Amino acid sequence: MIFITFPEQQLRTFTEAVFLKIGCPLADAQLAADVLLKSDLRGIDSHGVARLSGYVRLWEKERINATPNIRIVHETPTTATVDGDAGLGLVVAPFAMKVAIEKAKVYGSGWVSVKNSNHFGIAGYHSLLAVQQDMIGISMTNASPLVAPTYANERLLGTNPMCYGFPAGKYPPVIVDMATAAAANGKLEIAQRAKLPIPEGWAQDKDGANTTDPNELKAGGSLLPLGSDKDHGSHKGYGLSATVDILSAVLSGANYGPWVPPFVAFLEPSANPVGQGIGHFFGAMRVDGFRPAQDFKDHLDNWIERFKSAKTIDPGKRVIIPGEPEYAFENERKKNGIPLIDAVVNDLNELAAKLGVASL
Amino acid sequence: MIFITFPEQQLRTFTEAVFLKIGCPLADAQLAADVLLKSDLRGIDSHGVARLSGYVRLWEKERINATPNIRIVHETPTTATVDGDAGLGLVVAPFAMKVAIEKAKVYGSGWVSVKNSNHFGIAGYHSLLAVQQDMIGISMTNASPLVAPTYANERLLGTNPMCYGFPAGKYPPVIVDMATAAAANGKLEIAQRAKLPIPEGWAQDKDGANTTDPNELKAGGSLLPLGSDKDHGSHKGYGLSATVDILSAVLSGANYGPWVPPFVAFLEPSANPVGQGIGHFFGAMRVDGFRPAQDFKDHLDNWIERFKSAKTIDPGKRVIIPGEPEYAFENERKKNGIPLIDAVVNDLNELAAKLGVASL
Repeated sequence: MIFITFPEQQLRTFTEAVFLKIGCPLADAQLAADVLLKSDLRGIDSHGVARLSGYVRLWEKERINATPNIRIVHETPTTATVDGDAGLGLVVAPFAMKVAIEKAKVYGSGWVSVKNSNHFGIAGYHSLLAVQQDMIGISMTNASPLVAPTYANERLLGTNPMCYGFPAGKYPPVIVDMATAAAANGKLEIAQRAKLPIPEGWAQDKDGANTTDPNELKAGGSLLPLGSDKDHGSHKGYGLSATVDILSAVLSGANYGPWVPPFVAFLEPSANPVGQGIGHFFGAMRVDGFRPAQDFKDHLDNWIERFKSAKTIDPGKRVIIPGEPEYAFENERKKNGIPLIDAVVNDLNELAAKLGVASL
Repeated sequence: MIFITFPEQQLRTFTEAVFLKIGCPLADAQLAADVLLKSDLRGIDSHGVARLSGYVRLWEKERINATPNIRIVHETPTTATVDGDAGLGLVVAPFAMKVAIEKAKVYGSGWVSVKNSNHFGIAGYHSLLAVQQDMIGISMTNASPLVAPTYANERLLGTNPMCYGFPAGKYPPVIVDMATAAAANGKLEIAQRAKLPIPEGWAQDKDGANTTDPNELKAGGSLLPLGSDKDHGSHKGYGLSATVDILSAVLSGANYGPWVPPFVAFLEPSANPVGQGIGHFFGAMRVDGFRPAQDFKDHLDNWIERFKSAKTIDPGKRVIIPGEPEYAFENERKKNGIPLIDAVVNDLNELAAKLGVASL
């Protein structure tokens, strides 16, 4: 595998140009590029510019609306449902989080469920919008069905991430951003490319038997929920994923469970949808709605220090604070650039040629 | 093991008498008994009347205040911090959830973090208070440190449960109520009594090595987070547990991490606490703050039906809806009574003799 490293700004300009080309207004193109770049900067390569051509293919199929009328369709002082009008989730999600933040400024908290949206990038981006305002930021989304609930031999849930972000004082924010499956699909794809087996407990084959072959997922198998099997709490991972699905879609009027439309454009959405698009859920709570923000940050700093200095099972390891590795990646990549594998660069340059945008 | 079955009302009367005897006001004694009985009715035997003598021992040590002045110490229209004044968590928690519910009635949602409390029984009880009002109910608590974060060889977190409850239409509510550890301590205790090994991935020994001996926990070992090991996502279980700890205690001013006071009276709390008592977190959101409640319930019913009818890995199994087994237990035990093991009955009768309350 060959890596080519690009300065952040070069990838940002390229990504904005692509979004402009498909008809996004300038502000939306800049915002969508910012979400994708944030993912690459934070080391979550699977959710960054590597997905750009996927979004464009959905636009080509008219499943993404480049000029959506994103709007609130139902609300109370602290809750709202947003209709994303089939826009890019990369644009719809920050809109919805900002609604939550504005409500929180006035009333202490704000909660927004979203329907009729598409893939929103990394959950952490949206939570950070709240964290930057000294709020606790929560973001979730449902996703194309890949995960079998405990005892099921059907893909009924997505890898449905949940993210909780907390502002610290002298340390980077604590960002818990996790798929509710035992392992994300991206990890299976890496094993497929490297022709390596996967650990038991990540996936089952089309007959529902545990498998270590990463190719079984594409052959009718399923990912497993966090916990992997009943003995190890897979019903908990399934319950968390169900929670994300219900808050994101049953609450908003989006599609849920097996009806969630696929991200890949070559798979058709259900002919009998139960809602509109995919769903997200966002929350923002002012820290000073509970105690002075500085008190909270001082104690979170103390929490962080205690956990970082914990006795470990191995002198070569230490306890990692959620969000710490992504923060380190971000500092490093802002300085040294973002490495992309050659296959991704080729894919982006084919996209550029197709759209008539300057290549990388 | 011998089981003796008691009518619900007999255990309720007994439990109320015990709480009255230690000085609780009548309404508090009734409420605390209701929380414990709900646990026994729902089949969560580890959190019901089996714990009654534990609460009394904490009261004897003056770590539980039978006549607390539970009060809001900080608030905005939709957020609050409650000081439990060292009261029974069984009483403090419903107070706090009711604050959240009242705020939600007016503003759409309400969120309450609690300090200076004690063990609150089952999380599901408190979420159900909101669910009964057509709200989404959320409840969490931190707990005595038993769980080692990924790579740690120290107990830094409790089994820190999170619970999400959703009102359905023709089906029982969906109640996701789960410890964020791979397995709850109660499961290790059952294995200890039965002299059976535990599955790998539940616990590590005092040197941080995985163990199948349930006695290792008491010999300086630790429970493991949901996910069990890094390969299977234990950093996610750790991240969820951290989330519960921060929302419940860093936000409210309770003790967090290794400073959380132990439930068992024979272990002393930290001499250098970082806050007051243990912490909880509650949320209530009006369903009709997002869409008409009946629409939500109709779609949640559809969700439930689809998941219940899923193709399974084994014809003898079916996909279980979160909360469904507890609901079935409740119906059965309301009719046929609550079975207690003889050791629990003996413990309760010793308690009765000590306090001068009529025995079971």
